[in-house]
Amino acid sequence: MTRCLKNPFPLTSPKTIDTMIDLKVYLLTYQETINNKILEFLTADDNSSRVVQAMRYSISAGGKRIRPILALAAAEATHAPVLNVLPAACAIEMIHTYSLIHDDLPAMDDDTLRRGKPTSHIQYDEATAILAGDALLTLAFEILSTTENHSRESLSKHLKVIHVLARAAGYQGMIQGQMQDIHAEGNKIDLDALKTMHSLKTGVLIEAAVVVGALFGNAGQKQMQALRSYARQIGLAFQVVDDILNVSGDPGKLGKAVGTDMDRGKNTFPGVMGMAKAKAYAENLVQTALKALELFDNKADPLRGIARYIIDRRS
Amino acid sequence: MTRCLKNPFPLTSPKTIDTMIDLKVYLLTYQETINNKILEFLTADDNSSRVVQAMRYSISAGGKRIRPILALAAAEATHAPVLNVLPAACAIEMIHTYSLIHDDLPAMDDDTLRRGKPTSHIQYDEATAILAGDALLTLAFEILSTTENHSRESLSKHLKVIHVLARAAGYQGMIQGQMQDIHAEGNKIDLDALKTMHSLKTGVLIEAAVVVGALFGNAGQKQMQALRSYARQIGLAFQVVDDILNVSGDPGKLGKAVGTDMDRGKNTFPGVMGMAKAKAYAENLVQTALKALELFDNKADPLRGIARYIIDRRS
Repeated sequence: MTRCLKNPFPLTSPKTIDTMIDLKVYLLTYQETINNKILEFLTADDNSSRVVQAMRYSISAGGKRIRPILALAAAEATHAPVLNVLPAACAIEMIHTYSLIHDDLPAMDDDTLRRGKPTSHIQYDEATAILAGDALLTLAFEILSTTENHSRESLSKHLKVIHVLARAAGYQGMIQGQMQDIHAEGNKIDLDALKTMHSLKTGVLIEAAVVVGALFGNAGQKQMQALRSYARQIGLAFQVVDDILNVSGDPGKLGKAVGTDMDRGKNTFPGVMGMAKAKAYAENLVQTALKALELFDNKADPLRGIARYIIDRRS
Repeated sequence: MTRCLKNPFPLTSPKTIDTMIDLKVYLLTYQETINNKILEFLTADDNSSRVVQAMRYSISAGGKRIRPILALAAAEATHAPVLNVLPAACAIEMIHTYSLIHDDLPAMDDDTLRRGKPTSHIQYDEATAILAGDALLTLAFEILSTTENHSRESLSKHLKVIHVLARAAGYQGMIQGQMQDIHAEGNKIDLDALKTMHSLKTGVLIEAAVVVGALFGNAGQKQMQALRSYARQIGLAFQVVDDILNVSGDPGKLGKAVGTDMDRGKNTFPGVMGMAKAKAYAENLVQTALKALELFDNKADPLRGIARYIIDRRS
């Protein structure tokens, strides 16, 4: 069984191990589907323009596509035709990529490396990076407002999806989180403030991605509530694991330096809780996320697998 | 007749002079309506946050509100209830303000003064300015995706409005124009390139504003075509007059320094055509715009007045 991934949860059954293998295929398959679709959106027109090159550069830099895959998996869990969600999933990845480009800017986190490659303002220049970010955010809404199905239900769904994503990305969501992150740097904050900051900075978009998928599946209130709870737990777990990897990860696998959070005086979960408690906390969050999915049938297995993947990942 | 504005078109009739006076009232009235509505959108929530303060600062900095007023006036011209367009009009002003905040950044035009006040990154800091711009752009789409009318027609209209504005603001529109502007600085470009750059940088959003108003009025194809033509002409005229004012305007009235375009090696209409020809060109554009409105009744008078206002303005 050399293809088996290391089982991160000693208590889970052998079936889980199989699911993990399937998940790897699932992730790779959908990563490719998403990547192809994203490039379709970015090749249609002015290919030679510097800003389009910069948009393509950052969005093709090898992201894990967790957010768009969550949207697809949530659609699947709620028995929706998965591919209907594909354009919205791509739009979500564009919003995510825009936020990374802007967060990396000299005036913000001043990062020179992202996913093992020079950040946008290093590869191009600061003006191009700002505009490429702006353009990806705007293109997301252009894509989200495109529909060939003009039934009342489809139009309403599209408008809801736009609303959910705009709120998540906006000044009460991601942008607020980034502001808090900048102002927390160098100042000690407590666990609650750290959780709030991350739930805004990364959690809201992860939750929005799941909600978008579920909207396509016409999820009822109970299902939606469960999916939101799932998303909140894995969103936080994702960040906790990120912080853990920044201390103890493999720079080669991560594509970025380790130990940078501490050097910068960033508040991290291992920093606030200690490493052992942070690891236990991440596991606990994932277990709670899995529990929230109990009311779903095996169509939610990809969501279950992703929850486990988040804690098991090495990059 | 001390209240009479100087008549910029010697050939127009006395009725035009009256229209000019009415227009002043029209503009002031709608400016106030728009300003109040914008602040409603920005007071509802986290008022104390620095990014919200920065959003309010820039959007309250005394803009002329030409774009949102054009949306309202286009709605009026197409016999739509004007106030239905108000939220979309505010969203348009937010998109405009976001673009100004980002254009002013050190990495772009590096402007320290806008409308007589310190630019966002001077008043706050660069990170806050970038995020305030991002947040205004995102809030625009949040507002545009909000509707209480869930009829198929209303949902379809909202989705179209989002699409029109996202395309105008995106990498094939405003962002492309800003890229061209940055790269043209210090390099001589010809009249055609100058027109293309401005039609992208400022023209497309002006056109989109008019289209948005007309969408609410359910304008037919012929009306829409005429309004697009009107908008293209006045959009270009607006920029020509801007360039003229940068050479010969009153810094006190403009709220910014004059002569800055030449100092920077910016390509301008007076620079490329000479001052006399640039003035004649602006007048010609406005006359063509007015001609495009011939198929509309007197409900299009505000649009007619705005065309004349654009060439007559002193700031």
